[in-house]
Amino acid sequence: MNALPPPPDIVRSAYAELIVTSLADARHFWVDLLGFVVTAQDASALYLRGYDELTHHNLVLRTGPAAALGTLAFRVRSGADLSRAEDFYRALDCPVERVPAGVTRGIGEQVRAQDPLGFPVSFFAAAEHAERLQQRYDLRRGAEVARLDHFNICVPDVPAAYQLYSSLGFGLSETIEDGQTMYAAWMYRKQTVHDVAFTGGAGPRLHHLGFFAHEPHSVLRMCDILGATGEYEYIERGPGRHGVSNAFYVYLRDPDGHRMEVYTSDYYTGDPDHPVLRWSVLDPRRRDFWGHAVVPSWYSEASPVLSLSGSVVPATEIAQAAESAARVGADGFTAPPRAPSG
Amino acid sequence: MNALPPPPDIVRSAYAELIVTSLADARHFWVDLLGFVVTAQDASALYLRGYDELTHHNLVLRTGPAAALGTLAFRVRSGADLSRAEDFYRALDCPVERVPAGVTRGIGEQVRAQDPLGFPVSFFAAAEHAERLQQRYDLRRGAEVARLDHFNICVPDVPAAYQLYSSLGFGLSETIEDGQTMYAAWMYRKQTVHDVAFTGGAGPRLHHLGFFAHEPHSVLRMCDILGATGEYEYIERGPGRHGVSNAFYVYLRDPDGHRMEVYTSDYYTGDPDHPVLRWSVLDPRRRDFWGHAVVPSWYSEASPVLSLSGSVVPATEIAQAAESAARVGADGFTAPPRAPSG
Amino acid sequence: MNALPPPPDIVRSAYAELIVTSLADARHFWVDLLGFVVTAQDASALYLRGYDELTHHNLVLRTGPAAALGTLAFRVRSGADLSRAEDFYRALDCPVERVPAGVTRGIGEQVRAQDPLGFPVSFFAAAEHAERLQQRYDLRRGAEVARLDHFNICVPDVPAAYQLYSSLGFGLSETIEDGQTMYAAWMYRKQTVHDVAFTGGAGPRLHHLGFFAHEPHSVLRMCDILGATGEYEYIERGPGRHGVSNAFYVYLRDPDGHRMEVYTSDYYTGDPDHPVLRWSVLDPRRRDFWGHAVVPSWYSEASPVLSLSGSVVPATEIAQAAESAARVGADGFTAPPRAPSG
Amino acid sequence: MNALPPPPDIVRSAYAELIVTSLADARHFWVDLLGFVVTAQDASALYLRGYDELTHHNLVLRTGPAAALGTLAFRVRSGADLSRAEDFYRALDCPVERVPAGVTRGIGEQVRAQDPLGFPVSFFAAAEHAERLQQRYDLRRGAEVARLDHFNICVPDVPAAYQLYSSLGFGLSETIEDGQTMYAAWMYRKQTVHDVAFTGGAGPRLHHLGFFAHEPHSVLRMCDILGATGEYEYIERGPGRHGVSNAFYVYLRDPDGHRMEVYTSDYYTGDPDHPVLRWSVLDPRRRDFWGHAVVPSWYSEASPVLSLSGSVVPATEIAQAAESAARVGADGFTAPPRAPSG
Repeated sequence: MNALPPPPDIVRSAYAELIVTSLADARHFWVDLLGFVVTAQDASALYLRGYDELTHHNLVLRTGPAAALGTLAFRVRSGADLSRAEDFYRALDCPVERVPAGVTRGIGEQVRAQDPLGFPVSFFAAAEHAERLQQRYDLRRGAEVARLDHFNICVPDVPAAYQLYSSLGFGLSETIEDGQTMYAAWMYRKQTVHDVAFTGGAGPRLHHLGFFAHEPHSVLRMCDILGATGEYEYIERGPGRHGVSNAFYVYLRDPDGHRMEVYTSDYYTGDPDHPVLRWSVLDPRRRDFWGHAVVPSWYSEASPVLSLSGSVVPATEIAQAAESAARVGADGFTAPPRAPSG
Repeated sequence: MNALPPPPDIVRSAYAELIVTSLADARHFWVDLLGFVVTAQDASALYLRGYDELTHHNLVLRTGPAAALGTLAFRVRSGADLSRAEDFYRALDCPVERVPAGVTRGIGEQVRAQDPLGFPVSFFAAAEHAERLQQRYDLRRGAEVARLDHFNICVPDVPAAYQLYSSLGFGLSETIEDGQTMYAAWMYRKQTVHDVAFTGGAGPRLHHLGFFAHEPHSVLRMCDILGATGEYEYIERGPGRHGVSNAFYVYLRDPDGHRMEVYTSDYYTGDPDHPVLRWSVLDPRRRDFWGHAVVPSWYSEASPVLSLSGSVVPATEIAQAAESAARVGADGFTAPPRAPSG
Repeated sequence: MNALPPPPDIVRSAYAELIVTSLADARHFWVDLLGFVVTAQDASALYLRGYDELTHHNLVLRTGPAAALGTLAFRVRSGADLSRAEDFYRALDCPVERVPAGVTRGIGEQVRAQDPLGFPVSFFAAAEHAERLQQRYDLRRGAEVARLDHFNICVPDVPAAYQLYSSLGFGLSETIEDGQTMYAAWMYRKQTVHDVAFTGGAGPRLHHLGFFAHEPHSVLRMCDILGATGEYEYIERGPGRHGVSNAFYVYLRDPDGHRMEVYTSDYYTGDPDHPVLRWSVLDPRRRDFWGHAVVPSWYSEASPVLSLSGSVVPATEIAQAAESAARVGADGFTAPPRAPSG
Repeated sequence: MNALPPPPDIVRSAYAELIVTSLADARHFWVDLLGFVVTAQDASALYLRGYDELTHHNLVLRTGPAAALGTLAFRVRSGADLSRAEDFYRALDCPVERVPAGVTRGIGEQVRAQDPLGFPVSFFAAAEHAERLQQRYDLRRGAEVARLDHFNICVPDVPAAYQLYSSLGFGLSETIEDGQTMYAAWMYRKQTVHDVAFTGGAGPRLHHLGFFAHEPHSVLRMCDILGATGEYEYIERGPGRHGVSNAFYVYLRDPDGHRMEVYTSDYYTGDPDHPVLRWSVLDPRRRDFWGHAVVPSWYSEASPVLSLSGSVVPATEIAQAAESAARVGADGFTAPPRAPSG
């Protein structure tokens, strides 16, 4: 990819659009239970944000015939970066389009592409601001989500995804690997563990959207609320501590099966020589620091993604060794010592 | 049992004695990792307490040839209650003996019996006091256990256990049942959810010892420590929120397989008309309020118990319907509404 | 007092009635901000409880011409204890009356007295139950108060109050004293640090009502809510850690100036030989374990109390040395060592 | 300052050097009590870091004849930025020097300057890495400090400091002001509220070093430890919630009087259009969101700073209106509404 033009200066993962089959059901899950703030609602869509978010939204829930990912949107530094994004994806022979300001409510002009991995991605430099609710403790409910933290996507070829996002200027914070295979990787633009992560599996599919909360208390409270209302089946995995990222987490599935993570803690990655933390696929703590097994659905299920024209992008089966099938005795990495090394 | 003499006035579950096969390994688990306070140690035993405990110990770890429960000890109100305990168990044709003060270090005279359920139980009215460490935050480590909270025992016939402890003056706080079967019950003398609980299963066996910690933070921290040292295999189940008791918990297994629970929260039960909370065996929230399945070992594995002469008491297979086999469609109880009723 | 008849068997401090000048303002403070559960409301009163409370209420807010304490109500074990209460206070030459069931909504027959300290006290054995909301995490708001914990009263003669409550069968958990003077004392019936505490000062006056919350998080959240709404002037003192009781706390003042405490943690006191913890008045940690000075209003301000006929009981000035005036150099106690002794 | 050369690309505030009069006393405070990790120690200095820190240290404690600030060190992106730093400060007619790698243990070549405000500042691009202890929960003690967060400095002229750091490329997150005066300002390079903040007062002096912890629990625990050991006099102010930054905090003073803050939470500031939050000096919540008064010493006391030659830089009295003297009725800003606006 050495002939690629300079990439856009991406600031962070900023919002996602999910296609949901019932706006009422989605509102119940995301607003009534999880406590997201409603910036706006119209007949076909809900625009939601966390309590710390100052831009218009972190999540668009749009009605459609079947559950899918509509787009993964990244904020870029300036308008010039929109042109860079356009050039970058065109150079990769990807479908690219300009979307005028306001087509996505509250968001300025966007460049959209179906990237080489098959995902619908958007880039914008300007957005309307919303009311600052950061200190409105009187309004907080549910998981008290602060902001979007990251996108986690299923890709059949993790090294290919790593290469693409490296060329987009993302840093690598952590991996799961052995001597032969990179099973998963976490990459960042903002100074956290990640803006995007790759989970090996049939793809393109959306594995989950990660939302940041300030305290582990919010993770536990969210589960207690779902127990109280009898809607505990929305809880798929956790709460637990991740080995990777060190974050405290819980995974929920919305009424359409979209997976979301309430994610707290993690760490600063802004130093230019920030070292990569490489986890052995044989270390049971990589996915759950307490050694709990990952539920099978977490590895196998994910949301389909839409093309720019709105059709579902067919998923390609995994092209590499599957993490869920990794076994002690695999080549390359030895059994982990008591603590991972940086 | 209407001919029974008056029972002793039991104050609370006070300490347990566990037989362990390696005092060094047990010390590593209970002291180095869990952070219990060592009141005393001699060649064959460790005497441990929580940070809030003002009496000599909550736990004796004594070396022996095989892992077993040595005794479950209850505090009684006065010396006269020792005689009542003696009479009570003799009237039930149980083996009973007086144990002079100091035979168990730090503990006054005791009455010991092998109760009708087969368990070794002890009663004492006097004990040495230990240094008050409640506010020594500088010393706190591990799970920051405050005190013993309860004994949970496996019995093949839950109603028989319920009857025995009712005749001993215990109140009933919660049950798991359906129209035909009482699968489990929680009973108290002190003003918490329980001092003793019964889990249906082969018995007599010790299911677990429950220790109280003040904050959910301690439960999470304990797991994080076990992840950090690579000893996460000691974590058997949780962390989670119980439906029964509303407590936040984690279950660990010590190097000999003895199960212990770090248990926080629960509620006040001291009112004379405190109502029983009855959970349907069909409500997945009864054992984990977040609906997570219970790991099989938690239902099947438990510690053998010793007779007064120190031999293992053979366990009798469960005589009633097993909770782990209860299925939707069982008679009597309908599917639970969204919240349990008092 | 050796000729006193046997006292009633008091279970615990159960509810208080406060006279407020505006039910709307009181409802805003106690319900909208603090999150108390409304069991019932009528034209002149609000009946509130915590989320764990199973009886009808912990607090009655009743309109009246001026802010005052209406009554401090204790639950007794049985109907026979109502007669014992009547006899006990008559033997002390106190005004006593029987109040029929339902006069206080949700509460059975009561005995009311103006006790020798001048306080209006009530005793009841029966009460209606309210819906169990303990696990309705979806409903929790504000300070997430679980139940009433204690009454703290201002008395001009602390030893006299100590004697009265000793004769009522209360245990002594902690004191503030020096060689000559008992400045404050904490006494219990239920198995916590206290049901009633005495603060030396002009009296009879109500110092505060203490309400139990399960987690320090609730104390911090309550303050953050009051910051968010701009009503931070309701915060009088704290948050902080008490030396006495070891509880984490904050003191608020309601719109009528009634003081309430959100109180978490404390410890078990149910053992018959539970030792008294005696704090030197010279130890700055006794009132705030972090050594912070107590704000002057906390020592000087308190609510007047009503007689059985509804008139304000005149307060008598303090008859002993005042804690707020205690100075290093006072007789009897030396400067504290690093940790209090049990 | 339009003739200034381009500034160095500063990554973040990285470490500070404090001169202490007793290394043993300093070690007791910073290591034994606060729980800092010791990377290295030699006869004259201790090199400490937080648990998340991957570079050699966040704090150097160096023995000297009197308490003072030795330097405030910033990490820059590359070696070329060292030259830019040199040029930048020379253009401002400041004393500047190159310090070879290793002069400060673990740190590569540095540029040092006495900046126009009188502060000793250092810049480095390379540092040795230390062992990754982020997930060593078994080692955590004290306040469980993760990393250095910010420097807060006393300056007699806040707008002058704001101009200097603007020219260095820092963003402005929050201010305290009225229509006429900027009383305080918070500025950042990394994506948090600040790397440096200015408190109006006699200067140059160091107001405090802010260290990040992950949870409010750590702030409370630190205070409880200081209560437990009887060293509560190290606590100067708090715990509390800041209005500015929204962080939960406590301020401690070390044995030499150096002030440090345990600081948790705050928020993401990485978006290019991140809006400034301007607090009125009349809003009591600006410094403590719960409206508590700031203790006088917090406004008046601070550490002297050393010149490059090691002599104390004389402090200049405040040249503008003092925040501590601001009163309701000041021009320009009206009384705050219930919540600050962004």
